[in-house]
Amino acid sequence: MMLDLAFSRHDVVRRSASSRAAIVIDIMRASTTIAMALHNGCGGVIPVRERDEAKALAETLGGGVLLAGERRAEKIAGFDLGNSPADFSRERVAGKTVVLTTTNGTRAFRALDGAREVIVCAFVNVSAVARWLSRSGLDVMIVCAGRRGQFCLEDAVGGGMLIDRLLRVFDGAIVLSDAARASQILYAAHQGDLLGMLRDCEWGRGLTAGGFGADLELCAQVDVTGTVPVMRDGRLVAQEA
Amino acid sequence: MMLDLAFSRHDVVRRSASSRAAIVIDIMRASTTIAMALHNGCGGVIPVRERDEAKALAETLGGGVLLAGERRAEKIAGFDLGNSPADFSRERVAGKTVVLTTTNGTRAFRALDGAREVIVCAFVNVSAVARWLSRSGLDVMIVCAGRRGQFCLEDAVGGGMLIDRLLRVFDGAIVLSDAARASQILYAAHQGDLLGMLRDCEWGRGLTAGGFGADLELCAQVDVTGTVPVMRDGRLVAQEA
Repeated sequence: MMLDLAFSRHDVVRRSASSRAAIVIDIMRASTTIAMALHNGCGGVIPVRERDEAKALAETLGGGVLLAGERRAEKIAGFDLGNSPADFSRERVAGKTVVLTTTNGTRAFRALDGAREVIVCAFVNVSAVARWLSRSGLDVMIVCAGRRGQFCLEDAVGGGMLIDRLLRVFDGAIVLSDAARASQILYAAHQGDLLGMLRDCEWGRGLTAGGFGADLELCAQVDVTGTVPVMRDGRLVAQEA
Repeated sequence: MMLDLAFSRHDVVRRSASSRAAIVIDIMRASTTIAMALHNGCGGVIPVRERDEAKALAETLGGGVLLAGERRAEKIAGFDLGNSPADFSRERVAGKTVVLTTTNGTRAFRALDGAREVIVCAFVNVSAVARWLSRSGLDVMIVCAGRRGQFCLEDAVGGGMLIDRLLRVFDGAIVLSDAARASQILYAAHQGDLLGMLRDCEWGRGLTAGGFGADLELCAQVDVTGTVPVMRDGRLVAQEA
């Protein structure tokens, strides 16, 4: 298994997700939110880039659709839900379709044309994603969404954690790129205190200052769900691993 | 002092080197080669992007000019020197001007418009660069040249080593970005065996396979010169720190 990692959604353009399983990681908060929404019975999450696109799509789809998304961390005016994992409770999302637009996370999907599979990973479902990938046997491109298209620590640590879990469950040979190896080291340095890392990194400080500190505790949870969000016809749906 | 780091020459475009000291790191091999050429009495190194541009410039400059550069690690046909630090001995380069074109290192300079200073750093002069920056008091943007415009481990480790040295000599407050902190962790993980890291990373294996293994030993040397290459009118010249 070839295992590569892009430190931002721009970085992946110069690598290749072609014929690989592409794993999108946006720990704070889109990946966590998507995994927990599907865990709570949401029928599918459709990631879109722009808010107007989200509104138009929701109208086309008709009933049973929730509009969700953020700009500058805040819920978009007139939308049903923001981007806090706490918003996506079973009461709110079970049986519904969610159309989601976020600043970085949902934009990362656009860079993945040609990928064989598109998967979403966060701390909350990392071991399930590793099991899913192990069974798929596909080569892997981990795509850290990053912040403003740049490196951010928490997504790199998430990438390293996924690699750590993959090495435990995959019994074939794994070839790691420099970037993949670097993310392993970053995970090893922070595995003892993931919540502390989230609170201390750039975006964690920004979210805390914006009143979203409680979200960090939700995003720091490890393996609370076996749900693997997998893209099918433009819609992320739940698979179990 | 604000201290940021770009993991590739493309990454810096979305950050800002404006009004900062921009530090270009291409450990294997352009940074090492430039530092050692100036250490050995070279009068100036002019980094250019294309080989034809290099030839045209050398003709314009007339006597006392050496043409240097590589493509796919090999010396360009008809050039005086390749990109091996060993080529740039005192006998070859003292008193001469070198026009240099390399695949990644010399291209990184193009992304740095607006920088207050442009400096070249490698393991061979890392502590001298740290002293120079400490005295300048400027905010810092470290630019890892990377490989094919992507993350490479050795330049990230070099960036972390420069930060390590800066923290030792600068007595004011230093604010580190996520990327800067990540590079510190990558340096800490490899500081005990820099040569082993160079031999084991992607590009080190490529160079070794290409017959350039001896260059890795030169590039792994730490603080063998006090020379700081500083850009003046398009030409890197030696300053001492």
